[in-house]
Amino acid sequence: MTKPKTIRLVMPQWQGGNNPLYHLGAELLEFLAPHTNVPSFTVPVTKPDMPLKNENGIVERKEVVKQLQSAYAIINSEKPDKIVMFGGDCLVDLAPFSYLGTVYGKSFGILWIDAHPDVMTPEQFANSHAHVLGALMGNGDPDLVKDVKTPVPAERVMIAGIHHPTDYEKQFLQDHQISTVSPEQLKTSDQPVLDWIKKQNIEYLAIHLDLDVLDFHLFHALLMAEPGVSADKYAGIAEGRLTMDDVIKLVNDVNEATTIVGIGIAEHLPWDALHLKNMLAGLPLVNGN
Amino acid sequence: MTKPKTIRLVMPQWQGGNNPLYHLGAELLEFLAPHTNVPSFTVPVTKPDMPLKNENGIVERKEVVKQLQSAYAIINSEKPDKIVMFGGDCLVDLAPFSYLGTVYGKSFGILWIDAHPDVMTPEQFANSHAHVLGALMGNGDPDLVKDVKTPVPAERVMIAGIHHPTDYEKQFLQDHQISTVSPEQLKTSDQPVLDWIKKQNIEYLAIHLDLDVLDFHLFHALLMAEPGVSADKYAGIAEGRLTMDDVIKLVNDVNEATTIVGIGIAEHLPWDALHLKNMLAGLPLVNGN
Repeated sequence: MTKPKTIRLVMPQWQGGNNPLYHLGAELLEFLAPHTNVPSFTVPVTKPDMPLKNENGIVERKEVVKQLQSAYAIINSEKPDKIVMFGGDCLVDLAPFSYLGTVYGKSFGILWIDAHPDVMTPEQFANSHAHVLGALMGNGDPDLVKDVKTPVPAERVMIAGIHHPTDYEKQFLQDHQISTVSPEQLKTSDQPVLDWIKKQNIEYLAIHLDLDVLDFHLFHALLMAEPGVSADKYAGIAEGRLTMDDVIKLVNDVNEATTIVGIGIAEHLPWDALHLKNMLAGLPLVNGN
Repeated sequence: MTKPKTIRLVMPQWQGGNNPLYHLGAELLEFLAPHTNVPSFTVPVTKPDMPLKNENGIVERKEVVKQLQSAYAIINSEKPDKIVMFGGDCLVDLAPFSYLGTVYGKSFGILWIDAHPDVMTPEQFANSHAHVLGALMGNGDPDLVKDVKTPVPAERVMIAGIHHPTDYEKQFLQDHQISTVSPEQLKTSDQPVLDWIKKQNIEYLAIHLDLDVLDFHLFHALLMAEPGVSADKYAGIAEGRLTMDDVIKLVNDVNEATTIVGIGIAEHLPWDALHLKNMLAGLPLVNGN
């Protein structure tokens, strides 16, 4: 058996989450990542200096689709067995997970570690980072769904760390009978996830890690930890409740039970790094002036 | 007149503050810094994998002095007119400011933007990052003071952003008649700093910016923002009260009133980046395993 081929993708997509800070978040994630011998590719993304517009229900639709196609092009040319993806907003996992779903077919499943299910469509929300799991299941906007050749059936999807979904999301999860495990359950035991892997006979697993599943009081590079804003700015959005130790334990336990073929890390929003970067740029001598 | 020669130094010194995180803090500061054409040098520093020991009143004295000598060696070989220093702990500014003090002599002053005066000696505290301003004035441990050829007299030192000094510090400031300006004063007006520059006829100024002068509720890459520790872990240490806007305004106003010949940025402790880095290293596939 030849050694499986792994590639790393860096995709500083920010238009899907409508926040320029995702761009620096991706760069910083790459900076902090372990050094490996895996070949790395950066998906070209327009830098944050353009005004965003709603294009027929999706913010910056043309740009987002272009980036999606670029990601597919790299992946289809490299034909890897495993993919590590550093985002960027959550939408970055559409191309790699769609590709892996086609490669591994009926043995493939998705573990979505996220405070939110990401199953909305343009009808509910114009930021496409909230559409990505729905699209991977074949549901949603044609521009996102059309290249998902092997939609993942609901029984091979599990969402971990979710709580307080919106009414629409709740209905969707119920209609599709998608398995979920709450942060509180996970803190007691990750056995429900292992049981799901066994029951569905998932031999190859892709893991989406939305960092916003983490408690923002302990880790501040998250949307809701934006400093200096009024307490109600992010009211109504479910906040993460896991610790990094919870996540590390879950992923490593899962790694014993199946073969992880994809991991995407998304939604890194390093406010402190951005503010420090801006301060340094504003200091004479430091900025070269 | 030839263009003044500026160099940038990166000094990931962590033993002076007795915290391995300063090392990543320096690397990240360099990563976030504006790109300039200024030649950059990294002062060699032992990586954080050694147990620290108190050596005759100073933690890791031999190592700290070796790093200090390395910094002097680079500076004395380059003979710059201006220096940007990225730390590391506060002690990083000893070599560059000492050098600049000798270059500019009686026209030289130091603006110390810091919640703390850094005038202690081994008798009060074994972490040498708290000794640096004292040493620049010629006071303290011989290992730190001996290469300060032109000690800066107290009247050409001003400390901005300081509050609640310890009894020893209070006495030292009083004995030496060092000018200070509180964070509350600064927020109203930075005129006291401009008046001091004018009165002392300071033509060349070095600015020490200890990031812990900033409010850690708004910027979390600081000692006191360590997540998940008990509320009283850092009790008794004065916490920063300035915003980045306060600092940017102060430094730019000062830049109109004199020539800035040195800026050192110190005490960057990026907890979130460290924890994220460790999590990434603990995730299979992401870490190359």
